[in-house]
Amino acid sequence: MTIGAIEAGGTKFVCGLLQANSSDRARPQLIARASVPTTSPLETLEAALAFFTSSEYGHAKPDCFGIGCFGPVDLKPKSDTWGYITSTPKPLWSNTDIAGFFRSRLSLPVAFDTDVNAAAYGEFLWGAARELKDFVYITVGTGIGGGVFSGGDLVHGMIHPELGHLKLAREPGDGFAGSCPFHRDCLEGMASGPAIAARWGKRSEELPSGHPAWELEARYLARAIAAWTFTLSPERIIVGGGIGMREGMVERVAVLLKEELGGYVAALDSPPRLASYVVRPGLGAEAGLYGSAAIAMRFCAD
Amino acid sequence: MTIGAIEAGGTKFVCGLLQANSSDRARPQLIARASVPTTSPLETLEAALAFFTSSEYGHAKPDCFGIGCFGPVDLKPKSDTWGYITSTPKPLWSNTDIAGFFRSRLSLPVAFDTDVNAAAYGEFLWGAARELKDFVYITVGTGIGGGVFSGGDLVHGMIHPELGHLKLAREPGDGFAGSCPFHRDCLEGMASGPAIAARWGKRSEELPSGHPAWELEARYLARAIAAWTFTLSPERIIVGGGIGMREGMVERVAVLLKEELGGYVAALDSPPRLASYVVRPGLGAEAGLYGSAAIAMRFCAD
Repeated sequence: MTIGAIEAGGTKFVCGLLQANSSDRARPQLIARASVPTTSPLETLEAALAFFTSSEYGHAKPDCFGIGCFGPVDLKPKSDTWGYITSTPKPLWSNTDIAGFFRSRLSLPVAFDTDVNAAAYGEFLWGAARELKDFVYITVGTGIGGGVFSGGDLVHGMIHPELGHLKLAREPGDGFAGSCPFHRDCLEGMASGPAIAARWGKRSEELPSGHPAWELEARYLARAIAAWTFTLSPERIIVGGGIGMREGMVERVAVLLKEELGGYVAALDSPPRLASYVVRPGLGAEAGLYGSAAIAMRFCAD
Repeated sequence: MTIGAIEAGGTKFVCGLLQANSSDRARPQLIARASVPTTSPLETLEAALAFFTSSEYGHAKPDCFGIGCFGPVDLKPKSDTWGYITSTPKPLWSNTDIAGFFRSRLSLPVAFDTDVNAAAYGEFLWGAARELKDFVYITVGTGIGGGVFSGGDLVHGMIHPELGHLKLAREPGDGFAGSCPFHRDCLEGMASGPAIAARWGKRSEELPSGHPAWELEARYLARAIAAWTFTLSPERIIVGGGIGMREGMVERVAVLLKEELGGYVAALDSPPRLASYVVRPGLGAEAGLYGSAAIAMRFCAD
């Protein structure tokens, strides 16, 4: 079986063709990939489509197709705008029919979910959440978002979770106003890459290890993880994204999480337990792309 | 079918016998009830047991039995301490085998969950959450706790959610240290009945409508509900408990919730939608007792 997958992000669309052996549940093999910059919707979608239709790659036509998309998106199966990006602050992208574009141009069934839900599903099948029924996947980078797995399935709810917009208690002395256009000082407004850059006056990539930015970052991530722990009682928290996967980050978050929980969660009272509770994605930076393939495979199997 | 139900709380055990017609899904009829003060475990459990075994009520022996219990509790089916209250700060009650006591003394199967999960399940069957797949039930009174329904079932996760221990951003100028013995200024430490009493120097029952305590209370509840909204994307939030059900409380919380969401959740942008999003329990103060019957009925039907 050939699977087309797109991790549709705010800065780039990562496109992949994968080959799966339908008789097992192993991770499919990535046979071709391309990255398309996210510019205008038409330009971006056409460039992504070209990857799947161009003969120069010698591609097999995909049998099923999955898209994990930046949001907010419409996931209600019966909605007229299912598969759309809805009211995003990203210029030009509001009310864009992502799933419909590929469905009509490729004449294929298309699975569609948030980028982070797709990544969570990929981690469930092939990554750091195998065998788990309750976990959270978050990505910390240009934005902060997350997918929630509860009782053995992805949480969608009324729309879909927006974990990055959680409002947190500030650290004493932290006077940074926050960078979220909706909430100023929500988690994303305090701890995303752009927030770090605005707070410290340097891009996060330029801040060395040992800079106080990283201790504060770990503190806010630990505080958010404590909130999700109290709300969802998950078995694991997977932290991805460029900032989340920095060397030492999950280890420091795990240490600070113990303080944030205040001794209340007995199952998380020892360093080894905390170390297996806050982890990096098993699929690393590819969680979103493999996850988009994962939702495609599930969709075609249904 | 006769159902025995206990809402086991930190101040009282409410015991009920209910009669259900097994051919329909209507709410069972309460045929007898009693309230037993929560003193020592042995005294309390024996007094509750006497209600179910005494001939003076002319009781039918229950066919199934459900307990919604204050926590933390052990809900892992395979655990040696399933059905126990575990490490509660409540004096004398740590490591108490609640479910086992009734199972052995009544020779009956016993369903066991948190008090708030039971109440949530009652609201799902017969209250304000009928037909909903994703909602949150919270109780605001002596403590603050909540049950979460996601994808059509109760969330248990690693242990069970502890919604009351969410740490919130403070209101500017609020210097109250908080009353939670674990976290000081978590939601329960800032907005439970004892927190209100400690902050204002008067029991909450003595504070009149219009007192600034109630505006601050609504603000913190709205902030917590925003956090759960971003984390779970529920379709409804049910607010019970003596403080949650105060006149005007859910209405004021709904107004403040719009501010706390910062315009981010388009489905919650109008007053009518907010008014049907934050509601009182359909079962009122009986949500816990009926909910305990509800989990008993489900357990016996399985």
